[in-house]
Amino acid sequence: MPASTLWAMERGDVDTGTVYLVGAGPGDPGLMTRRALELIAAADAILYDRLIPTGALDGAPPDAELRYVGKRPGAPSLDQAEINALLVELARDGRRVVRLKGGDPFVFGRGGEEAHALRAAGVACEIVPGITSAVAAPAAAGIPVTHRGLSAHFTVVTGHRQHGELPINWRALAEGGGTLIVLMGVSQRGIIADELMAGGLSASTPVAAVRRASTTEQTVV
Amino acid sequence: MPASTLWAMERGDVDTGTVYLVGAGPGDPGLMTRRALELIAAADAILYDRLIPTGALDGAPPDAELRYVGKRPGAPSLDQAEINALLVELARDGRRVVRLKGGDPFVFGRGGEEAHALRAAGVACEIVPGITSAVAAPAAAGIPVTHRGLSAHFTVVTGHRQHGELPINWRALAEGGGTLIVLMGVSQRGIIADELMAGGLSASTPVAAVRRASTTEQTVV
Repeated sequence: MPASTLWAMERGDVDTGTVYLVGAGPGDPGLMTRRALELIAAADAILYDRLIPTGALDGAPPDAELRYVGKRPGAPSLDQAEINALLVELARDGRRVVRLKGGDPFVFGRGGEEAHALRAAGVACEIVPGITSAVAAPAAAGIPVTHRGLSAHFTVVTGHRQHGELPINWRALAEGGGTLIVLMGVSQRGIIADELMAGGLSASTPVAAVRRASTTEQTVV
Repeated sequence: MPASTLWAMERGDVDTGTVYLVGAGPGDPGLMTRRALELIAAADAILYDRLIPTGALDGAPPDAELRYVGKRPGAPSLDQAEINALLVELARDGRRVVRLKGGDPFVFGRGGEEAHALRAAGVACEIVPGITSAVAAPAAAGIPVTHRGLSAHFTVVTGHRQHGELPINWRALAEGGGTLIVLMGVSQRGIIADELMAGGLSASTPVAAVRRASTTEQTVV
């Protein structure tokens, strides 16, 4: 069977006036999904963040509007409300809109806020999951997040607390056991380790740190 | 840019004598990764489970050996040690071997045990993450596993306890807060709910049940 038949659209077409909230996976272009590639290839407008894979936009139509909406250190960047408004405006303008995010749109991706804003505005929206680095980064370091007899569950938490975020009960997480995956935890690692040890974790608990997982710049400590 | 350029192999070729532990995602064929499709298209042998997407093997070469190694109710099926031995044997025979699993190989997929057996036998192994239904099933029901101001972390646990598995501290999980995702929890739902309420969760805590997520047979309660 030729490779082209792999591109049959089982899931449906790409509609005008619709926003697709698409996860681009952890950074390896090979870990993008068929549906993500299909949507990028058919998009009229793509709003993307910093942490998408290298070359992720290579398949976009030449006349598609590609707009970076991620943070710009030292320069003005769109806030979440502005991104939401832009998505609504582009969809109402009859475009096929792809909102492309690193990882999965519903895992610390603020996709829930965007989906909510689109629904409130009456704009059609499809969620396209991506591989979250919460699972892929440990895998890239050879670590299964579950393993029979060692870890029967796992918890994913962000170490980077932004304004308006809920506090994390690190001690309860330590008591719950299982594998703990902390995203963006480098700057807070001292405080997190203290809290986890207060919750009963041994100071000799194995820890791995993974940077730029699944890309050619990956480092593991 | 033609769609065919999307198939450039950034990640490397498909090697003989190697086992690829590949996640096939939650069930929607569109949520398979480019790398998974590439490996299936180049495989000499594919060992697969029950929960792979419909049509997942359509792209396999006509002469590839396709072998179902999942459970067969009322009939003999391979146990994990036999699957491990078969993977080693096929790789030593110089084949390109794909071990295809539903979801992600390292999330309740026993991929860790297979990777360990392959490493012990000196067989080359590549892990190819897939989208886990732990994240995709809530997304398919419109539920973000994290949401600013509502849920700052999530825990994934299996409700199906097999022989040799560690016990789950449901009370501590309830105390930890965040979104709780229980895979294969239907048969144990009464016990799980009791334990979670003993840990402090309100009886009015919202719950969603998702069956056959992301497939055409999906149901949400």
